[in-house]
Amino acid sequence: MAIRYPNGKEYTQPAQSSQAKQQNKNPVFSNRGMTLEDDINETNAYYLSQNMAVIHKKPVPVQIVRVDYPARSAAVIKEAYFRQASTTDYNGVYRGKYIDFEAKETNSETSFPLKNFHAHQIAHMKQVDEHGGIAFVIIRFSKTDELFFLPFHALNAFWERMHNGGRKSITKAELTSCSMELKLGFSPRIPFLDAVEDVYF
Amino acid sequence: MAIRYPNGKEYTQPAQSSQAKQQNKNPVFSNRGMTLEDDINETNAYYLSQNMAVIHKKPVPVQIVRVDYPARSAAVIKEAYFRQASTTDYNGVYRGKYIDFEAKETNSETSFPLKNFHAHQIAHMKQVDEHGGIAFVIIRFSKTDELFFLPFHALNAFWERMHNGGRKSITKAELTSCSMELKLGFSPRIPFLDAVEDVYF
Repeated sequence: MAIRYPNGKEYTQPAQSSQAKQQNKNPVFSNRGMTLEDDINETNAYYLSQNMAVIHKKPVPVQIVRVDYPARSAAVIKEAYFRQASTTDYNGVYRGKYIDFEAKETNSETSFPLKNFHAHQIAHMKQVDEHGGIAFVIIRFSKTDELFFLPFHALNAFWERMHNGGRKSITKAELTSCSMELKLGFSPRIPFLDAVEDVYF
Repeated sequence: MAIRYPNGKEYTQPAQSSQAKQQNKNPVFSNRGMTLEDDINETNAYYLSQNMAVIHKKPVPVQIVRVDYPARSAAVIKEAYFRQASTTDYNGVYRGKYIDFEAKETNSETSFPLKNFHAHQIAHMKQVDEHGGIAFVIIRFSKTDELFFLPFHALNAFWERMHNGGRKSITKAELTSCSMELKLGFSPRIPFLDAVEDVYF
């Protein structure tokens, strides 16, 4: 990553020993109980506020069955069901280009199971890619708070390997070689535009 | 519009007099009781099937308050409320570019009331525009089935005029001079990519 965002703490605690820093690499950022979605929403809000990109999360798709209209109150949805999303969760514009991605996390420590993706999400990203858009996924290993930026091309190779009878997951060693690691930061939390910049521009 | 899609009927009814054709200009396409949203969804599906663009409608944003999980059944949303959308309804990718638009219809026959837009939708389209994305609106006059493609720049000029104390609507004469008319067709129903092509490429 070309740009490193300063941690901040290091400036306010100059007395901290380098050994302490070593043992406690991410004192501020990790394990705050935020979900990957929270982190990405915060990141998108940061990018928007800094006028760097316009990226939003799509609303959760819901099939509405029954709506009540109480007098003098807002309409209340009384019966609805979750629908399966037909696309990815996030999209927007960065430097004029269409950007489209999905974020997934796993509790596994050794590999990322491909069953986290639906076939139609892969199909959607493939279409985006074919139309010159930028498609990728952000993968988080929850236990270790490790984040990887995996371009669609690489993901698709693993997806096709599975459909040709190969393994149903991406090992961490494979991920390390095919993706870019994203370091959790403060602002932005997940600096994925740095990776977009490196890979696609 | 450069491409004219054949009506179809004209080929199977060669005996039809030119006078009859004159009187009955849109025998197939108009007044079928389809909403503008239906027409645009059909158009997007057509563009996707023809591998011309990847554009989807965003789900309706809903604030979910209570969900029941009946045994052996799908989760049921029992209480939820409609939220105001923070962006536009449609976005996607066309020739690598980010495309973003909103569709509105009016029952007025003489002008399009600007109150159909929310301030945050205008702000969102402005951001898209500033980041090199393609932003526009499709306006339909329901009574006459007339459709206009209005680029964001033109819309914004009318919006600012209103905020400077000017009129709160766009007259039809203004629309005619600042936008492109879209002719309702069969496939696609609303050929807005032709206008995108003319205006932005």
